Amino acid sequence: MSEKINTDVIMIGAGPSALSAAVYTTREDIKTILLEKGVIGGLAAITDQVDNYPGFPEGVTGLDLAEKLEKQAERFGADIRYGEVSAINAVDGGIEVKTADELYYAKAALIATGSDYKKIGVPGEEEFYGRGVHYCATCDGAFYRDKKLVVVGGGNSAIQEALFLTRFASHIDLLVRSTVKASEVLQKDLQKAVDEGKVSVHIGTTTDEIVGKENKVTSVIGTKDGEKVTFATDGVFVFVGLLPNTGFLENTAVELDETGFIKTDKNLMTAIPGVFASGDVRSGATMQIASAVGEGATAALKIREYIEEQARS
Amino acid sequence: MSEKINTDVIMIGAGPSALSAAVYTTREDIKTILLEKGVIGGLAAITDQVDNYPGFPEGVTGLDLAEKLEKQAERFGADIRYGEVSAINAVDGGIEVKTADELYYAKAALIATGSDYKKIGVPGEEEFYGRGVHYCATCDGAFYRDKKLVVVGGGNSAIQEALFLTRFASHIDLLVRSTVKASEVLQKDLQKAVDEGKVSVHIGTTTDEIVGKENKVTSVIGTKDGEKVTFATDGVFVFVGLLPNTGFLENTAVELDETGFIKTDKNLMTAIPGVFASGDVRSGATMQIASAVGEGATAALKIREYIEEQARS
Repeated sequence: MSEKINTDVIMIGAGPSALSAAVYTTREDIKTILLEKGVIGGLAAITDQVDNYPGFPEGVTGLDLAEKLEKQAERFGADIRYGEVSAINAVDGGIEVKTADELYYAKAALIATGSDYKKIGVPGEEEFYGRGVHYCATCDGAFYRDKKLVVVGGGNSAIQEALFLTRFASHIDLLVRSTVKASEVLQKDLQKAVDEGKVSVHIGTTTDEIVGKENKVTSVIGTKDGEKVTFATDGVFVFVGLLPNTGFLENTAVELDETGFIKTDKNLMTAIPGVFASGDVRSGATMQIASAVGEGATAALKIREYIEEQARS
Repeated sequence: MSEKINTDVIMIGAGPSALSAAVYTTREDIKTILLEKGVIGGLAAITDQVDNYPGFPEGVTGLDLAEKLEKQAERFGADIRYGEVSAINAVDGGIEVKTADELYYAKAALIATGSDYKKIGVPGEEEFYGRGVHYCATCDGAFYRDKKLVVVGGGNSAIQEALFLTRFASHIDLLVRSTVKASEVLQKDLQKAVDEGKVSVHIGTTTDEIVGKENKVTSVIGTKDGEKVTFATDGVFVFVGLLPNTGFLENTAVELDETGFIKTDKNLMTAIPGVFASGDVRSGATMQIASAVGEGATAALKIREYIEEQARS
């Protein structure tokens, strides 16, 4: 391990929320290092088309938006590095962050590691990601006006999102591996959508393969009662859960909610003083780029206030 | 008064926060009317250069950003109208909004009327607005690296922002009409900045005129002890307070904090069920476009959930 690297703020993650925060901190000459273990730009960077990030009337590709955010943060001096964080701790007036190769010491830290959508792990899922296979109805539902959809999942959020998608799709096949496990109100609404011919519910049906050609999904192959079943479709929405990237916080004082997201106070500060969280990894997150970016800006201002207060006391 | 106009959501204000919310609601086919009494795009539209709205690495003019936001909201069907709201009330399962000419009825409402910076009302203030006269250090301080500044104000926020601006400016003249009214800690820090030659404090000094030529501020004229004083400067920052646009809420059930900003719960809902608030008018707002836009997106999702819940019950 090399010697300790000192900075003002260390940000874990380099997705839209951290990049937005870094625009603010670096523009105010607050020395900022970002540590990214995967892709700069996060989930946004691997999203095909973003139609709802305000400021781009005709939409923008996720990659283009991610590059703009990165360029803007770097314009003011953000130092973006690759590295996977293994520990974060409060140490004598500051925050210590460890990666495999380095030890960082900062006045404050921002955790903006985001969340991943749970995958079902079937052939075609990765190949058609963002081009027929989706995980966010609010983001991508509007691309399926008057089209046929398959929705995978049987929990509260799957039912809720399937019902939401009925406002766009001409018909939805809902594939539920075991049984529907949703609230009574949602089940009643689902029954109504079934009665109206908007949704067909296929319980006890596994999703085995997503099939397509020329960059387009054409059908989903599943199994019901031991028999192969095929659903013709224009797209697939998978709602089987979210995985917040908080594994590295297991043995720290950062408090998580029951689903693993980071709890924060009204200043976006976690249970460790000086450690803040923003974006999709935060409890209550909306999984929207706009919200993540907005929280990043707010977190940066709160971090600056925190550093100023510490300097005074 | 014409007959009642029905819609799904009525938004009061058409600044960045409401326009962002409208992108979300209209994209989901939630019928949305926005009522604006002043300028579409709000404070952003009259800002010269915006360097910290994420997504524009080289910055963007406020007018250009405002037009992009408007175009994007209208792309999905937002109906933006001019009108000044005089009343908002909960009525039998919905929200009623009155203007001079119309009566609107909606399932939910969003208040995003923003805040204005208090002006000092002197010659030159309006003429050089955004081009030498500023009200937000976080937004515009970085444009004054190694330049001379005048700061007007003597309260907590004026001192805090003046101290913040010392990281950019080569020297600051602080003009205080009566005496400095800031916390002891801030006064101590101010003294330190004075001792280091970064700030000169001029108490009992009025600000009478902002002078410039060819789109640039060159000096500020004031009065001290009955004598005219002139301060050569590259720019002026005025910190004499904020005016949230909440006058029309005086006789409503919407709760305001002690400074007139709207109190909201964690879902951005006000004390009137079905009435939400986002952006600069909300208690705790950061006066940043990114934060206002992010809150607009979040508010739209919460409004959709609220409308869906109401439809079920």
